[in-house]
Amino acid sequence: MKNYKITVSYDGTRYKGWQVLKSTDATIQGKLQMVLSALAGHPVEVIGSGRTDAGVHAIGQVANFHLDEHFSAEEIFEDLNRHLPEDIAVTKIKEVDDRFHSRYQAVEKTYRYRIRTSPVPNVFERKFLYQYGQTLDVDKMKKAAQALVGTHDFASFCGNRHMKKSTVRTIFSIDLVERDGEIEILYCGNGFLQNMVRILTGTLIEVGRGERAPESMPALLKAKERKQAGYTAPPQGLRLEKVTYETMDGRC
Amino acid sequence: MKNYKITVSYDGTRYKGWQVLKSTDATIQGKLQMVLSALAGHPVEVIGSGRTDAGVHAIGQVANFHLDEHFSAEEIFEDLNRHLPEDIAVTKIKEVDDRFHSRYQAVEKTYRYRIRTSPVPNVFERKFLYQYGQTLDVDKMKKAAQALVGTHDFASFCGNRHMKKSTVRTIFSIDLVERDGEIEILYCGNGFLQNMVRILTGTLIEVGRGERAPESMPALLKAKERKQAGYTAPPQGLRLEKVTYETMDGRC
Repeated sequence: MKNYKITVSYDGTRYKGWQVLKSTDATIQGKLQMVLSALAGHPVEVIGSGRTDAGVHAIGQVANFHLDEHFSAEEIFEDLNRHLPEDIAVTKIKEVDDRFHSRYQAVEKTYRYRIRTSPVPNVFERKFLYQYGQTLDVDKMKKAAQALVGTHDFASFCGNRHMKKSTVRTIFSIDLVERDGEIEILYCGNGFLQNMVRILTGTLIEVGRGERAPESMPALLKAKERKQAGYTAPPQGLRLEKVTYETMDGRC
Repeated sequence: MKNYKITVSYDGTRYKGWQVLKSTDATIQGKLQMVLSALAGHPVEVIGSGRTDAGVHAIGQVANFHLDEHFSAEEIFEDLNRHLPEDIAVTKIKEVDDRFHSRYQAVEKTYRYRIRTSPVPNVFERKFLYQYGQTLDVDKMKKAAQALVGTHDFASFCGNRHMKKSTVRTIFSIDLVERDGEIEILYCGNGFLQNMVRILTGTLIEVGRGERAPESMPALLKAKERKQAGYTAPPQGLRLEKVTYETMDGRC
């Protein structure tokens, strides 16, 4: 058996997220498993670096799977892109060490959230941004964002009420860029809880419209209560950009 | 009555083009007329700079309409963007001289055609490009394009078999840019015949894959027969970028 690492790009609009739930649901993992299983002639499991919510997109999701060795990486690549629906594409494939595991070995993830503040709608990218339509105070948002960077218990920002595992995560950076009637927020961290990026974004938006003080972030983290944080920003503005791995050759 | 000039952006995917055909069809002109007529309380006609085919997009279509003066330009702008479907947006509005006519006074139009040559599909922009998936000889295409620039009878590139008016047009420039697995072709001219940009593109693609010589363009123009030219490239790769007007203050 060979182990293949793939990079996957998807428009999540019509999917119930990455992970297979019921076999009848449309999920990205499910579509990949169907195409690979048909190619192999037996069930193939695809391991993703992590879940993405329903309606969330990815340009750099990483996954891996094991397959019999009579296929070349190029053959698998072509077969996947030929049979996957037009809103899912494999952009890279690489044969990797048998021990590579896309979830366990991920050390860093980058998500991008796009908020359109201009009252003029963007018709071409409307499915990939949150059409907010009002100005926000970006300086205040930046100040609040800085208070969230670091290693914290993010229980206040966790959408899963029954989370039993640790809710401690490290955010390496949160960068806000304002351009062309939009605010782009880049979140980089060692991992994110369910809905965490969307709740962080909703909270930053509430700061940007003056409903919360940037100085209230430490107390919010300390509260460890979901209801203390802001609303969950809609999924369409979010995209998983990159997953980084620590290998013997350095980060990749 | 006041005369308003608007700039319109649309994702043409689900429309039968710009121009109203039967009143039941989904057209961009039809949608604009419906919203403006509801606002005015009487039928309002919207004059476009020209038609775009079914499935073709625009980021800089220009139109004008006359309306009673008790509305401000800002009120009309907001009403339009509130009531138009999410794939049509008005990006600019300006009150103009009563004699301004968006079709008669247009002096230059720019269209962009995007061909994706990379075998890796672009899932996010798939509705706005032609997923060709194979490499093309861009140097040959550029050479052929240069032979098409100028004032010519473009009857060979006209999709309307029953065209009774002049098929002479002037192409000011055709620029090909290769980047990120795509070829972008920018066509600038004083006007374009029905399907003309798509037939020019199909012909250039045939040159790019070696089926036609760049040197065959003059003979093709001279033939004045649609069947001598290449295929009609699909509509989704095409977008109307800009319409320019000659005014007393110069071009705009």
